[in-house]
Amino acid sequence: MFENGVTCPIPISDYPTVLLAHGGGGTLMHQLIEKMFVAAFGNPLLNNRHDGAVFDPAKRRHAFTTDSYVVRPLFFRGGDIGSLAVNGTVNDLAMCGARPLYLSAGFILEEGLPMETLWRIVRSMRAAADNAAVSIVTGDTKVVDRGKGDGVFINTAGIGVVDHDLVIAPASVRPGDVILLNGDIGRHGMAIMAEREGLAFESAIESDCAPLNGIVAALLSAGIEIHCMRDLTRGGLSSALVEIAEAGQVHIRIDESVIPVREDVRGACEILGFDPLYVANEGRFVCFVPARQADQALAVMRSNPLGVGASRIGAVSDSPAGLVILTSWIGAARIIDMLSGEQLPRIC
Amino acid sequence: MFENGVTCPIPISDYPTVLLAHGGGGTLMHQLIEKMFVAAFGNPLLNNRHDGAVFDPAKRRHAFTTDSYVVRPLFFRGGDIGSLAVNGTVNDLAMCGARPLYLSAGFILEEGLPMETLWRIVRSMRAAADNAAVSIVTGDTKVVDRGKGDGVFINTAGIGVVDHDLVIAPASVRPGDVILLNGDIGRHGMAIMAEREGLAFESAIESDCAPLNGIVAALLSAGIEIHCMRDLTRGGLSSALVEIAEAGQVHIRIDESVIPVREDVRGACEILGFDPLYVANEGRFVCFVPARQADQALAVMRSNPLGVGASRIGAVSDSPAGLVILTSWIGAARIIDMLSGEQLPRIC
Repeated sequence: MFENGVTCPIPISDYPTVLLAHGGGGTLMHQLIEKMFVAAFGNPLLNNRHDGAVFDPAKRRHAFTTDSYVVRPLFFRGGDIGSLAVNGTVNDLAMCGARPLYLSAGFILEEGLPMETLWRIVRSMRAAADNAAVSIVTGDTKVVDRGKGDGVFINTAGIGVVDHDLVIAPASVRPGDVILLNGDIGRHGMAIMAEREGLAFESAIESDCAPLNGIVAALLSAGIEIHCMRDLTRGGLSSALVEIAEAGQVHIRIDESVIPVREDVRGACEILGFDPLYVANEGRFVCFVPARQADQALAVMRSNPLGVGASRIGAVSDSPAGLVILTSWIGAARIIDMLSGEQLPRIC
Repeated sequence: MFENGVTCPIPISDYPTVLLAHGGGGTLMHQLIEKMFVAAFGNPLLNNRHDGAVFDPAKRRHAFTTDSYVVRPLFFRGGDIGSLAVNGTVNDLAMCGARPLYLSAGFILEEGLPMETLWRIVRSMRAAADNAAVSIVTGDTKVVDRGKGDGVFINTAGIGVVDHDLVIAPASVRPGDVILLNGDIGRHGMAIMAEREGLAFESAIESDCAPLNGIVAALLSAGIEIHCMRDLTRGGLSSALVEIAEAGQVHIRIDESVIPVREDVRGACEILGFDPLYVANEGRFVCFVPARQADQALAVMRSNPLGVGASRIGAVSDSPAGLVILTSWIGAARIIDMLSGEQLPRIC
């Protein structure tokens, strides 16, 4: 909807940066909402200009989720805090098996944030929302004094509708299930690290930030009985699998040699001392499906632009319950733990 | 549910303060979620431990809203950031005419926040949620590095169901409508200012922070045809009325002599140079009702603990549209503008 060249709708000459008054409930906040947020996110629900959006739900189950985004830097190769805030919450809904419908947007702005920066982020949110076919229907703006925030933090909450009768959750995972992964891992975390450290890798790594609702919808409409899904954000593939093994009380085995990691990502991980299995992704997920549907599900994934590099990375058995075992490149087996301590602060 | 004496479930001796790793997606974040948030907010939806909550909606309209809370200080007379984060979002839903059902909770914690402080806030949220009969069903935690936040910011989004067929919005306001206010104004803002400035007023002022869903439900079940409601947060009574007059294209007249302001609040406003009409409240709202139901609505409000001091403060006519006129104590008429600039930063 917005070309890159669209001028910031708040005159930069008048308000080059965000002021405390932009969060004060008065004229300036009103202008910011009307001229920037409603202009960018405009849709019939948001245009009501009420404290909340009122909508008619279908008579089906709904999903509700929230995430705050504090990524640093705000802009990185392959995305920015705005696209991340939309795609991240869209993906949480998709992982519940829901079709994302509506997002809220809560901004915590630091006094002095350049208005142009905010506008760039807002445009990116609109583009990401259009791309994921969701509407931003309600919002809130707070401004904190200089030095008490860090540019901009964004919270998005999301509502989606569940169009099927599957119970997609760790408790639905069964021994015999096959684990599919939709592509190469480690790019988001390494893209952020490259920006932060000013590293010039041989080939620049871009974040995998993307909305997963389309590929999930493709799996569901192909009749795949998905048992569980999880997107591989903070803590990466390893933490997601450990969480599911523990919550579902099943045993998971995965094979390192079939987990795709791009060469430049592997190199960056080696230089910086990271294990790609623990690095955050923003467009990757694991999907637990019955063995009899594994080939079909893999074919569906591979025919989607976000699943071209999909692979079958492991399987589920019953014991030892709660444990994840990785067979390494050289054939050795090792227990995968949850990430301990902090690996990459403010990655999302 | 929680006595004041309940010990912080994260051993203070091990983790006296929040670490970056408490937001890292690994073991520590897992512990924080399990031991503190699930312990405090626990309910069947949250206990699913999935990325989002899935629920069966009634076949009716729903409302969806969000607010971030950045109030400083975190604790004040009459409330804290936790109770504010619950009541504020409950009130936004109530103002849509919705019965609040579910809240999300997104925490942005600053590295080094005392764990005991977080626990106190979390307990307060649970108590406020119980009091308002809502459940906190999904959440998220991010930790930012020391100096890049300010203790804790909380976002809550909320979902409510609309049990009636009224369209409660500025567009429904009609000439002839009567404007009701549920009690004295200015307490929340002055309670915060008193804490910040270390002022010792003769009688200590406590915030009016409270959930308004009960009193709204009482009005609706009495058959009051509510045309519009608005809670009087940032920007106070004046900004709320100006917003409604502009959005509904009606003319509003209010009478200063019948707007309740407590003596100590009036005194504090005079000392600090504030106009109570612009000071934030967290448990006050205006309600636009047809004239024929005004007495009945007032009686319903006064029979509710949050409406004991309710009064009829003005009325709606058709022109000049978009304008709010106040008749002052001495009989003079003045135009009420929206708050210009920032009066009380970080009041909520």
